[in-house]
Amino acid sequence: MKAEMRQQPEVLAALADRWPTLTAQVAALLDSAPPLGVAFLARGSSDHAALLGRYAVEVQTGLPTCLVAPSVATAYGRPPEGFRGWLLVALSQSGRTPEIVDLAHRYADAGARVIGVTNDGGSALASAAHLSIALEAGPETAVPATKTVTGQLLAVLAVAAGLAPGGLTQAQAAALPEAVARVLADGESADRAARRLADHDRLAVVGRGACYPAALESALKLQETTGLMAHGFSTADFRHGPIAVCGPDAPALLLAGSGPADADTLDVRAALAARRAPVLLAGTAPDADLPWPALGHLGECLPATVRGQQLALATARHLGIDPDQPAGLNKVTLTN
Amino acid sequence: MKAEMRQQPEVLAALADRWPTLTAQVAALLDSAPPLGVAFLARGSSDHAALLGRYAVEVQTGLPTCLVAPSVATAYGRPPEGFRGWLLVALSQSGRTPEIVDLAHRYADAGARVIGVTNDGGSALASAAHLSIALEAGPETAVPATKTVTGQLLAVLAVAAGLAPGGLTQAQAAALPEAVARVLADGESADRAARRLADHDRLAVVGRGACYPAALESALKLQETTGLMAHGFSTADFRHGPIAVCGPDAPALLLAGSGPADADTLDVRAALAARRAPVLLAGTAPDADLPWPALGHLGECLPATVRGQQLALATARHLGIDPDQPAGLNKVTLTN
Repeated sequence: MKAEMRQQPEVLAALADRWPTLTAQVAALLDSAPPLGVAFLARGSSDHAALLGRYAVEVQTGLPTCLVAPSVATAYGRPPEGFRGWLLVALSQSGRTPEIVDLAHRYADAGARVIGVTNDGGSALASAAHLSIALEAGPETAVPATKTVTGQLLAVLAVAAGLAPGGLTQAQAAALPEAVARVLADGESADRAARRLADHDRLAVVGRGACYPAALESALKLQETTGLMAHGFSTADFRHGPIAVCGPDAPALLLAGSGPADADTLDVRAALAARRAPVLLAGTAPDADLPWPALGHLGECLPATVRGQQLALATARHLGIDPDQPAGLNKVTLTN
Repeated sequence: MKAEMRQQPEVLAALADRWPTLTAQVAALLDSAPPLGVAFLARGSSDHAALLGRYAVEVQTGLPTCLVAPSVATAYGRPPEGFRGWLLVALSQSGRTPEIVDLAHRYADAGARVIGVTNDGGSALASAAHLSIALEAGPETAVPATKTVTGQLLAVLAVAAGLAPGGLTQAQAAALPEAVARVLADGESADRAARRLADHDRLAVVGRGACYPAALESALKLQETTGLMAHGFSTADFRHGPIAVCGPDAPALLLAGSGPADADTLDVRAALAARRAPVLLAGTAPDADLPWPALGHLGECLPATVRGQQLALATARHLGIDPDQPAGLNKVTLTN
């Protein structure tokens, strides 16, 4: 896991180099007719990239966007006939998750154009798609996905940038590997934070906007690697109920960058202090325990996500757990 | 909370009585032009009703459905111009959540037809909507919402039934109050389950299909009333990673009814047994710890949700917590 995390700046730099090609391919796919809406299809970590893609597309284009509920088709047997003229962005690290491949075919058959985002350009998902975006991140063998996740995050931002003006520029994309490298170079902050977590078996992870997918992904990474009951929340939901889970024994990790939704997350600190809940702050504030550089766009989801990876890895080590092979988990998901 | 929970059969029976009117009003609103898609707008508990509505509409109609991300408009300032010709279903118990009211206006201005589902037919949300569906559940004063939640669940099923054939019939709707009453009459099961939970500070709540919104709602209710770190999961996601949080000290509550997605949830028991995690089973299986009657349709979300309410209430009492006024929470949400 640690070795794969360290490859992230390189993987992201290669994707940023391909930015003009990737965005042009997306634009060409949709040139004949702009989509009526954009649907994202994913499971697990890929679902968090879908969530970022969904924000980016909707903020930029105003088009309807949705996250597909796979069971509508797979369990209830409803064909996605209403998605004629839509764009489907299907994400699967392996490109082999049967449910995702099957659904990509069904959407294509129903008249949607399909982009497949996968680490393996020769996979079944890549073949099922009208346009395949390969992450080319190299083999990922640790069960907790890391470099393919940040690769997917950047890939969905490329899709959004190809759809309409106003998305991430190549220069902005090219600055991300450096931001991620700076986070990776600072392992000490993560070690310190992990020591503060190690006495606890519960954690709320809270963010909004670009930091919301990062909060869900960080919680998942902590669950998978450490067995810690980490729960990701949208700040807006958290303060009105779930905050009740936090207290002296149940800390919160707040993710807050420099975007318009992040001030709300910083505001939650007062309510957490009143509950005497320990708080770890990750983000662009000067007093952040886990800092990342301010970027001023949705790409901040990437350094935020890497902070979560680091914290999961450091916490696992602190607890004497092998993060690469958490008990009872497999790499390729098979959902019926 | 207990008194309001007990009013649920009566509230639901009144809604079921209005079934022909409600479905006809929805059909009339959309008579001139069927919607291009259906968006749901909600926060907190209402978001779980939105999730059920989204399933029901998509399974029945094949139309694109989505859950609105409020921050796209409120924090990022993007008008929802792509939603012209869509139906927006906005849910707010009080009908006064400013963010929801504001967004309902923005969607109407953008050319969407708006249905407002609220407990107060005179509220700002009801006024903003082209069609107001009032739950008429009477005042709800406990902080944890109960009767307005099951009312919303039934109301979104009425919206789905009004949109297209194949939805809940009036007879099916009219059977729900009885199913809920049977659950409420069996407080002993919930007390027994609460005693098994009271030694733990973490819980995974797992379900799929109609039971997925109920799993999220049950987790939220447990969080709000007891401070237990309860985390709701989709079965499909849970088994491939988050299951790592379960073990001898961290039990799972499985919600599994009689629908096509529920067998998957029962299958998870083997993996949980291998982890020596205590399991509470709620559902229609003969050996369920928290049984409910098999109904064979998405309406099973209602008895499942009431089982979660019961468990939250019984656990709070067992822990000596006042479930009506959990520390530091307010009834009306104000999100900036």
